[in-house]
Amino acid sequence: MTYCVGLLLKAGMVLLSDTRTNAGVDNISTYRKMFTFEDPGERIVAIMTAGSLSVTQTAIARLEDEIASGTGPSLMSADTMLGVAQHVGAVLGEVSSQVADRMGSRAQNARASMILGGQRRDGAMRLFLIYPEGNFIEATEDTPYLQIGEHKYGKPILDRVVTPDTNLVDAQKAALLSMDSTLRSNLSVGMPLDLMVIEEGTQRSGLRRRIEPDDPAFHRMSVAWSKALKDGFTEIEI
Amino acid sequence: MTYCVGLLLKAGMVLLSDTRTNAGVDNISTYRKMFTFEDPGERIVAIMTAGSLSVTQTAIARLEDEIASGTGPSLMSADTMLGVAQHVGAVLGEVSSQVADRMGSRAQNARASMILGGQRRDGAMRLFLIYPEGNFIEATEDTPYLQIGEHKYGKPILDRVVTPDTNLVDAQKAALLSMDSTLRSNLSVGMPLDLMVIEEGTQRSGLRRRIEPDDPAFHRMSVAWSKALKDGFTEIEI
Repeated sequence: MTYCVGLLLKAGMVLLSDTRTNAGVDNISTYRKMFTFEDPGERIVAIMTAGSLSVTQTAIARLEDEIASGTGPSLMSADTMLGVAQHVGAVLGEVSSQVADRMGSRAQNARASMILGGQRRDGAMRLFLIYPEGNFIEATEDTPYLQIGEHKYGKPILDRVVTPDTNLVDAQKAALLSMDSTLRSNLSVGMPLDLMVIEEGTQRSGLRRRIEPDDPAFHRMSVAWSKALKDGFTEIEI
Repeated sequence: MTYCVGLLLKAGMVLLSDTRTNAGVDNISTYRKMFTFEDPGERIVAIMTAGSLSVTQTAIARLEDEIASGTGPSLMSADTMLGVAQHVGAVLGEVSSQVADRMGSRAQNARASMILGGQRRDGAMRLFLIYPEGNFIEATEDTPYLQIGEHKYGKPILDRVVTPDTNLVDAQKAALLSMDSTLRSNLSVGMPLDLMVIEEGTQRSGLRRRIEPDDPAFHRMSVAWSKALKDGFTEIEI
């Protein structure tokens, strides 16, 4: 399983992904699920992936090859962020259906989804969730975050604290606590984590941090949150 | 959808269920999902249901008929709580497969599960989760609660605060806050709620409360919890 979350705020974007991949509980590995494509100052595109590793790796490799070849359309050449989402969606849909064809009756396992966020110069920052078939939805002011993978455990905290006006520090905190709840409840979501912040109007990756299992700051935050919940619980009268 | 939770503690048992039933989002009704069978002082059995209403209603009606007829085995005549779980499991499995037979290709919709808790005189209090096929698992000291239906949103709070030593007031609070998180995140779980407390060794239903949508105590608790979470969030340093 996987948990990835992207927050779209007026101040910028916060993206967080885990790295655990499993083919059954007895075959667990660590794979990066966050990919960045940037031409600093001009364009940044970040993609997070969930689902079949064979689909997501092939799709990402194809997107990279398109950019490297320099000929033909690519996510770096699309005119708008909507164009980027359409391009990436088309690639994901195509790879999914190729893999599904090969898998026959197990085709339902050839599914993957993506969160795609970014900004090009003179354009707005946009955040999309791309479904396995390549269609997509977009984050809005009403729903300023998108999740893929194991999304339920980490949703309540986001619903309570995230609005488009949330600042980038609080947004990182919300994303990390949302991940913390998910890590506690689903073993198939696992450390290390990849965190990235993109400030509005910069078109480049800002803070990038890999959070290892022994990260003292994350541990401290996790313990403090647990204590806050328990204290809050104790104080409430029935 | 549905959310029901049962907590098995040294001091007794707390059961909480919602009442929303839906056949699509445009056909929503209120149905009781908590059923009590008791011979006060001798035996109490409580059942909460999730899944296909046609299956759960038929199963509950059969269990009631068996008791009314007074001949043949019933959940009030089984020798032990394990026997009660086996009997109820057999009825649920049988009704499920009868309804599934009639539904042909839509048979996967004929699924229902139950939480069954209770105590007979001179026996231990026990809490079971019965699967659609009639097999079951039991709550233990390590995992003192069971959930059916939309269980994910409400699990983190239970994991953090519930142990077998939790007292009955805190256990009610935990169950209600777990329900509160679920109500916020899943529209197909809805008020009113049914709450029941069974004290260990009494073999009778103790507190029983139907919590309506405008219940001031539940509303106050919900607001206080929201505030505690937000305050806790604000205080945590990243």
